Amino acid sequence: MLIERMVTEMGQAAKEASRILRKTERSAKDKALLMTADRLLERKEEIQKENRKDLSLAREQGLSSAMIDRLTLDDKTLKSMAEGMREVAGLPDPVGEVTGMWKRPTGLTVGRVRIPLGVIGFIYESRPNVTVDAAALCLKSGNSVILKGGSEAINSNMILEKILKDALLEAGLPEKAVQVVPTTDRDAVRVLLGLDRYVDIIIPRGGEGLIRYVVENSRIPVLKHYKGVCHVYVDEFADPAMASDVCFNSKVQRPGVCNAMETMLVHKKIAGEFLPAMGKRFRDAGVELRGCPETIKILPWARAAVESDWPEEFLDLILSVRVVSDMDEALDHIEKYGSNHTDAIITKDYERSRRFLAEVDSSLVLVNASTRFNDGFQLGLGAEIGINTSKLHAFGPMGLEELTTTKFIAYGDGQLRS
Amino acid sequence: MLIERMVTEMGQAAKEASRILRKTERSAKDKALLMTADRLLERKEEIQKENRKDLSLAREQGLSSAMIDRLTLDDKTLKSMAEGMREVAGLPDPVGEVTGMWKRPTGLTVGRVRIPLGVIGFIYESRPNVTVDAAALCLKSGNSVILKGGSEAINSNMILEKILKDALLEAGLPEKAVQVVPTTDRDAVRVLLGLDRYVDIIIPRGGEGLIRYVVENSRIPVLKHYKGVCHVYVDEFADPAMASDVCFNSKVQRPGVCNAMETMLVHKKIAGEFLPAMGKRFRDAGVELRGCPETIKILPWARAAVESDWPEEFLDLILSVRVVSDMDEALDHIEKYGSNHTDAIITKDYERSRRFLAEVDSSLVLVNASTRFNDGFQLGLGAEIGINTSKLHAFGPMGLEELTTTKFIAYGDGQLRS
Repeated sequence: MLIERMVTEMGQAAKEASRILRKTERSAKDKALLMTADRLLERKEEIQKENRKDLSLAREQGLSSAMIDRLTLDDKTLKSMAEGMREVAGLPDPVGEVTGMWKRPTGLTVGRVRIPLGVIGFIYESRPNVTVDAAALCLKSGNSVILKGGSEAINSNMILEKILKDALLEAGLPEKAVQVVPTTDRDAVRVLLGLDRYVDIIIPRGGEGLIRYVVENSRIPVLKHYKGVCHVYVDEFADPAMASDVCFNSKVQRPGVCNAMETMLVHKKIAGEFLPAMGKRFRDAGVELRGCPETIKILPWARAAVESDWPEEFLDLILSVRVVSDMDEALDHIEKYGSNHTDAIITKDYERSRRFLAEVDSSLVLVNASTRFNDGFQLGLGAEIGINTSKLHAFGPMGLEELTTTKFIAYGDGQLRS
Repeated sequence: MLIERMVTEMGQAAKEASRILRKTERSAKDKALLMTADRLLERKEEIQKENRKDLSLAREQGLSSAMIDRLTLDDKTLKSMAEGMREVAGLPDPVGEVTGMWKRPTGLTVGRVRIPLGVIGFIYESRPNVTVDAAALCLKSGNSVILKGGSEAINSNMILEKILKDALLEAGLPEKAVQVVPTTDRDAVRVLLGLDRYVDIIIPRGGEGLIRYVVENSRIPVLKHYKGVCHVYVDEFADPAMASDVCFNSKVQRPGVCNAMETMLVHKKIAGEFLPAMGKRFRDAGVELRGCPETIKILPWARAAVESDWPEEFLDLILSVRVVSDMDEALDHIEKYGSNHTDAIITKDYERSRRFLAEVDSSLVLVNASTRFNDGFQLGLGAEIGINTSKLHAFGPMGLEELTTTKFIAYGDGQLRS
């Protein structure tokens, strides 16, 4: 009951703060962001003292060194967090933009104007730097945010909240605009997911288990992706050198992320020429290949793929490979096993490029470029709070604009409906 | 289990049909719409025979004459349904529109292109004409739709589905693009709301009870409004004649709909001049007034408002009236009791008009015009499938464009991420 009450009060306070934020001019929001950037560096001893509490607990609990690395707020991380805040301050303010205005036969002038969503619930794992990144994007877009981080980062997140709140107050903004849930009790998540009176949208970021828990328990709309099973289709009319470079980059440049390639589809007419060199390049880079029977004929050293490999997000140096007899088979494969995340075709054929762009139902569809470009910064949104693979609200990477909506406004001279 | 399996299979079939619909050109979709329009008139005996089954059952069950009126598919209704189909056919196709395209420093050309949402679940009460209206909007925007209408209209809805399916087949489109749930068992709704594998979005239309049931039981995002508690704020600088006309139109022109005014807020400096004549005009039209103490001082014949009147959607010739001491009090009242639906200010003051437009958090905010304009047709969207008062995806009336989303596309020349 205590947690229920606490989280509910946080929701109510966030809603009240959002009423002020939605009429806040850009200058005050930017001031709070720039002050946070300064304070992250000025108060680094204070931050690192709290961070060490999390780190020593993490070591006691035997967390992996990779996990501990992600948890550490060293000088370099703090500096890059501060830079991130300054970059967000420099981005245009999406709020207030009139996205269209037209006149009706009645003389009524009707328009749509961009407004904040209201209150965002952000649920994430590990990585305390995400706390300030997410807070910056929500604040800049005029939204209040309730942050529920991983339990292993609780002390770090609490001191970061303090820094953010101090900056908000200094900028004349409500401190409840940014709130960190001050408990590691998972029940807080359950309560948060039920606060549809106060919270407009939930963005979870983390493993598939966390995402599924959130979707199954939320009464609030959730923007999320479960996983990224990304494909590169090497068409019969591909330039083999380009195909090799793009496939290699898509798989190897950073294999642990959602926009890395997990399955390579190769047209049978190019497979004999393309696969031997490509296979060797992957093998030399330590990539395990899991191939269909046709692939194994060409690369006998590869492991045979099983059915469960096709919908799998390996997040590792593992790649499933399938030879397809035509483009339809590639499109069917992507439709069946894909995750609506990111898919690319490599081809020199105009008509096939057009067809792939039109028919693949993914948040980013590329021709002749690496799947790794599905990212808010890379695509030119300026920032990114996450990638959504549901069709609702924003399909794909979400930047500042995707944290807003539009309302209708109408200027009249006494118009009546007849 | 039978219903579970049936509805699940409908979801799967809708998903498969949506894959074809998303690459269907405008001409085929329009052909199906125009054929439906023709068949609605040519096959009217067949339709009315089924409709009479619903009507006689409705009479047996003692439904109100208003309900029976809404259920009746007479010649006039069928004609207007056919006209509606032709109008939707004439609207521009939103699918395929490129809403923006830009070049990145890497040389990658990135754009956003409008695509259908996929599969829409539409849950509604009574009114069989809504069956074809909703099907037309979903089809035109390239979406499959699963329609679950009211049990009292089941025979009418089934014959309308048959007409729609015949037209789809004649136009070379998959007949599963439009499916009516062929049962009155409410369990079908529960199953439908769990089909997040197949259904992208749920739109419920009906009373608050239906909407709440849907929101509480859905794993799929729901676009909806619970109610429309719409306000007109008569500012101290209002033109009294315009204020009287707009308030009268907002309340009386059609009191039973969601965009009718439910509460009138009057600035105290104009109340003494404005309220006596306005009150009389409402009383003469049979409107019951429920006033705050200040209102009662001016209109002693009015009934005293109680707290529960302020958040109430009367949907009737009843109006709550409150005198406010300044604009802040009006804004606070709308924030506290409003439903983010439609609110208007009547004023000649420039700064107040700007402030009202900026600060009121409703899907349509008007200056000097009737609340009754919150409607897709009236605002210029060409059509409307419903009004959404959640901030997600589309805030306000939803037309064809709001039944789509955008995906990112990227044209490259071998770009790699470094």
